[in-house]
Amino acid sequence: MKKSTLIILLSAILCNSFGQSFLSEKYDLMPWPKSVKELHSKFVIDSTLTITINGHNNGRIHTVATKFLRRLADRTGVFLDQGFPTSHQTGSIEINFKTVSDLSLQHDESYILDVGNQQILITAVTDVGAMRALETLLQLANFDASGYYFEGVHIEDSPRFVWRGLMIDAARHFQPVSVLKRNLDAMASVKLNVFHWHLTDDQGFRIESKVYPRLQELGSDGLFYTQEQIKDVVRYASNLGIRVVPEIDVPGHASAILTAYPEIGSKAGYPYHIERYAGIFDPTLDPTNPKTYEFLDHLLAEIAPLFPDEYFHIGGDENAGKHWDENKNIQQFKQENNLKTNHDLQTYFNIKLEKILKKYGKKLMGWDEIMTPNMPTTAIIHSWRGENEGLSKRGTLITAAKLGYQTVLSNGYYIDRMLSVKHHYSVDPIGDAQLTKEERSRILGGEATMWSELVTPMTIDSRIWPRMAAIAERFWSPKNVKNIDNMLKRLKVVSYNLEELGITHIKNRDVILRIMSNHHNNDALKELSELCEPLKMYTRNAGGTEYKSFSPFTLFADACVADAKDALAFNKLVNKFNDNPDEEIINGLKSYFKEWSNNYEELSPIAEVPNIKPLILLSQHLSKTSKLLFSTFENKMISTTDLRALKASLNILKQPFADTELAIVNSLYKLEGYCEKNYLVP
Amino acid sequence: MKKSTLIILLSAILCNSFGQSFLSEKYDLMPWPKSVKELHSKFVIDSTLTITINGHNNGRIHTVATKFLRRLADRTGVFLDQGFPTSHQTGSIEINFKTVSDLSLQHDESYILDVGNQQILITAVTDVGAMRALETLLQLANFDASGYYFEGVHIEDSPRFVWRGLMIDAARHFQPVSVLKRNLDAMASVKLNVFHWHLTDDQGFRIESKVYPRLQELGSDGLFYTQEQIKDVVRYASNLGIRVVPEIDVPGHASAILTAYPEIGSKAGYPYHIERYAGIFDPTLDPTNPKTYEFLDHLLAEIAPLFPDEYFHIGGDENAGKHWDENKNIQQFKQENNLKTNHDLQTYFNIKLEKILKKYGKKLMGWDEIMTPNMPTTAIIHSWRGENEGLSKRGTLITAAKLGYQTVLSNGYYIDRMLSVKHHYSVDPIGDAQLTKEERSRILGGEATMWSELVTPMTIDSRIWPRMAAIAERFWSPKNVKNIDNMLKRLKVVSYNLEELGITHIKNRDVILRIMSNHHNNDALKELSELCEPLKMYTRNAGGTEYKSFSPFTLFADACVADAKDALAFNKLVNKFNDNPDEEIINGLKSYFKEWSNNYEELSPIAEVPNIKPLILLSQHLSKTSKLLFSTFENKMISTTDLRALKASLNILKQPFADTELAIVNSLYKLEGYCEKNYLVP
Repeated sequence: MKKSTLIILLSAILCNSFGQSFLSEKYDLMPWPKSVKELHSKFVIDSTLTITINGHNNGRIHTVATKFLRRLADRTGVFLDQGFPTSHQTGSIEINFKTVSDLSLQHDESYILDVGNQQILITAVTDVGAMRALETLLQLANFDASGYYFEGVHIEDSPRFVWRGLMIDAARHFQPVSVLKRNLDAMASVKLNVFHWHLTDDQGFRIESKVYPRLQELGSDGLFYTQEQIKDVVRYASNLGIRVVPEIDVPGHASAILTAYPEIGSKAGYPYHIERYAGIFDPTLDPTNPKTYEFLDHLLAEIAPLFPDEYFHIGGDENAGKHWDENKNIQQFKQENNLKTNHDLQTYFNIKLEKILKKYGKKLMGWDEIMTPNMPTTAIIHSWRGENEGLSKRGTLITAAKLGYQTVLSNGYYIDRMLSVKHHYSVDPIGDAQLTKEERSRILGGEATMWSELVTPMTIDSRIWPRMAAIAERFWSPKNVKNIDNMLKRLKVVSYNLEELGITHIKNRDVILRIMSNHHNNDALKELSELCEPLKMYTRNAGGTEYKSFSPFTLFADACVADAKDALAFNKLVNKFNDNPDEEIINGLKSYFKEWSNNYEELSPIAEVPNIKPLILLSQHLSKTSKLLFSTFENKMISTTDLRALKASLNILKQPFADTELAIVNSLYKLEGYCEKNYLVP
Repeated sequence: MKKSTLIILLSAILCNSFGQSFLSEKYDLMPWPKSVKELHSKFVIDSTLTITINGHNNGRIHTVATKFLRRLADRTGVFLDQGFPTSHQTGSIEINFKTVSDLSLQHDESYILDVGNQQILITAVTDVGAMRALETLLQLANFDASGYYFEGVHIEDSPRFVWRGLMIDAARHFQPVSVLKRNLDAMASVKLNVFHWHLTDDQGFRIESKVYPRLQELGSDGLFYTQEQIKDVVRYASNLGIRVVPEIDVPGHASAILTAYPEIGSKAGYPYHIERYAGIFDPTLDPTNPKTYEFLDHLLAEIAPLFPDEYFHIGGDENAGKHWDENKNIQQFKQENNLKTNHDLQTYFNIKLEKILKKYGKKLMGWDEIMTPNMPTTAIIHSWRGENEGLSKRGTLITAAKLGYQTVLSNGYYIDRMLSVKHHYSVDPIGDAQLTKEERSRILGGEATMWSELVTPMTIDSRIWPRMAAIAERFWSPKNVKNIDNMLKRLKVVSYNLEELGITHIKNRDVILRIMSNHHNNDALKELSELCEPLKMYTRNAGGTEYKSFSPFTLFADACVADAKDALAFNKLVNKFNDNPDEEIINGLKSYFKEWSNNYEELSPIAEVPNIKPLILLSQHLSKTSKLLFSTFENKMISTTDLRALKASLNILKQPFADTELAIVNSLYKLEGYCEKNYLVP
């Protein structure tokens, strides 16, 4: 063995074991690639930069490369001489690929990216792989005193899962095309490749039907996508290498459909209407009525061709069958057809639906309730239920894979529950499940779900991003990429980059604060919004009736996000303090307390603004607590009176305010405990 | 005469003469209505608020009233029980009107609004009048310690001009549908009623043609409106009571058309291409070629029906005729047809075009170059040239009206020139021109023009708004509503309300500052952006070649606006000081200087970020000047050395930095002069 070979071999081993953790401190790539090597080169970004595309060009890569040039110019301020990819010559960024991707479940998204001093080489099997490389490259842009440059690295990359999705619910709150497009841009920027479009529900039917026009006329409040708009969104997604999987949710979640066509409902004379509340409702298609299948057949004949993707999602979830139980004909039908339970009846329905879909070249996908003994294994099982629904974690996913179904995980990725990014990032689609190679291959990947009961076009971005970027990493990167602190560091940069793409998660926070404070948004209010988080799970909308679909969503909770920035930093510091209560950390804590001590005083000029009022008590006791803790740590002593006052304030602070929770309460309790133990002067 | 009658009469007289100035200090209405009377009533906004619509309902008023409820809920945070207009009953807001407007030049937009304690009554001739009333009502929302309410007033209102427009240039920089829709919302909120859509120019042809598909294939870089999108925008505008006047600019400004169809160009073999620069270019349709008219006939047959409006704008501006002069056949044609000048030839072209348009039910509108002796008076003359183009102020407008043309004024409303709102607000469409009643009636109104050479979807709102709202007042309100300070006070509130509608003028400033500072946006940078204004007129893009259409527009100048907030306030204070240099004002000035003294120090942490560098010298000398002026006013003395240093700094500050100008330089010079005169210690 030659010496140089030995060195290469040793480097390779070192890279594999320590490489990622070292390099991921240095480069803010997300999702983190399969393999990154430093070349110690540096590609200067100046006006002469060009892109050349070698490969069968169907326009898609040209569009993405053009957008790349705009984004690069906008980020760096560099005036490029060439604003479009140049052809038939060697460019400074050279893109090579073999085929145009068909966006199937088998398509290849791998790429090799090589950033040299003079040239950047992208090599991929498909155009989509090359597009993924361009996103990585943009994340490598950096600057020093002499200007912008690309970091010199060699990257070999490919995804862990082929299905990396985001579901957007456009039914509960309609989301205009512009919202979808900016989110598709953002998805592509973190290499997501499936947009699951939840198009119908109790609260609205959002597709223009020419065959059944009453669907949008009576079932949408005028808020629906025209067929041309649907084609436009699908084309836009496809140009980003993103598949679009549509969902028409049946037989439950059907209030909007039945408002338009009550004759296929399960309860004659029922006052079907567009639902304004959130929750699970009774209106359900009648699976025993031939007209139901006629309706679905004609509707799907019209709708299915709008979506080139192989899969069509039929929902199939949360049907308690109440109206079925109340309908004698349906009960009789069950008896006659030996369908013992409502589940059996729904399977009967699903199987008929699967045949209709097949006729239009589509395979069926459905929420995991569809996984009943007679369901054909050609269906994809969309695993959503878990511990919250009385099942085990990832329960239906593993079962589905073992039973022979292809399957996609959403349990653990319900981003509408407003849980921390840390939580979602820690959910692995496979975890430690013991699977055969075949079973493993049936786990296609995951999908985050953005249900929109409490989400409007103004706020949806801040509910999806930046958490979605970390989930995208979970779906793309090797399983062992899971250091949370490192993820958080990279996520911060990605979050800013998302803003460049038009994502409104940062800027709309300020807009809401301005609106709710009658345009007196002040620093104290902003400070509170960086300490509070919207109530978790579904507690913000107790019983589904606190908010209607037309309620205001320009409230304090709408300005707050799942991971309150300052709370995150403060809680981290308190954890450090717990490990090692030294003076430097105490000084850090004190500087927070000093700041928060003034919150009440600073908020008071706007105390009379109606939507500020519910925050006054919070502000008052945050300031009070902060003053007490500051003086306790300053003097290393606390009197029993002060301790009692501190406890009383904490007791108030632990309550919800304006549908949010103060995300530092646990930390404050920890500190209170410490003070009682160490500083109490009787 | 009874006493009470006398009082009423007296009040009426008082209201007419002093009423507006008094009430417009109290209510932030814009445009200010024709007549406002206080009722001293107060309508409380709570969950029971409802809207009833009485009148032929074509859906339009229903849509606007529904949006009104959303906007009201979002602004106030009130949870309404009824999210939609209720029918067949008396609502707390009752809307009455007689007919659905046809959106013609004759349509009626007048309304009466009466806000009582228990009920709000809107009475109008047309649904559009009622929609205008709803906008006024929303501007009457206010709050006190007990919550939100509508101010109790009686308003009778109607517009001064029937044509109140905004032109958006979607050719130089393409503006997606979402940009147009949010601007249409904003237009309706200040009662504008014409959207002039500049759809084609040298830099792009933005309409999908099925007859001539190469227009969008080769002439748009893929950035164009599909016919469905055009219909969607027109429908959206119509639902807001806004007419859409499309423009296809011919025979000049034709680079994009000729890129696709060079055979109808005036210069054989010319390398036609989509233009990337700004300016006036040579490519021109050949008016002597029958194929040109065949092309225009077929194209208009396809395009005209997309736009229900009576008028079609054919541009007709800025054709120097260079390629005509260079073409022997064209010269020969001119001789044969006794067309002496290129203007005569263009008139020949315009008259043929007018006949084509007539065939498709359209009347012709064109920029004022079309006003040549043989032009039929059925055309609308769009007056744009003025003092900058070597003509008199409003020159072509008055001439057109006297010659028998209907006419619309844009001269004075070129908002792309980045002049102050004060300037535009002061331009009256008629001024002191002496006109007969007939001539006066031909002046239809005005239109602001948003040319987009230096404007992207990210920045366009901040170039249009809030200045456009003040111009809208000029077009709607009585001529004597012209107090600038009062307008500025109301404009501030309107500006915030525009943000609620989705206008991005406030929030995107922060986005650009974050991008250009590599997400280190700090207060010092923000401070500079509130003191600097983009270079005025067209000096930012010297020769039209500094910026290409694909250059970055995420630079410092793009974050700055025409009326720099702090500069406005400071300049006002310096003017006060000039009138009366008392100690209180000096203290005010000193507090500015104190703040700005630290700018350089505070900016320094990001001094190495590439796009911050061009601001360092500005920051340094702003701080230096501020320190010197602070100490001079503090000590009432300045040494010759310090005075020399002050002058040197001002000499630097008067230069442009990063395509902006420091908008307080004149004020600083005034203060320097004062200091030299009063405080110099030799």
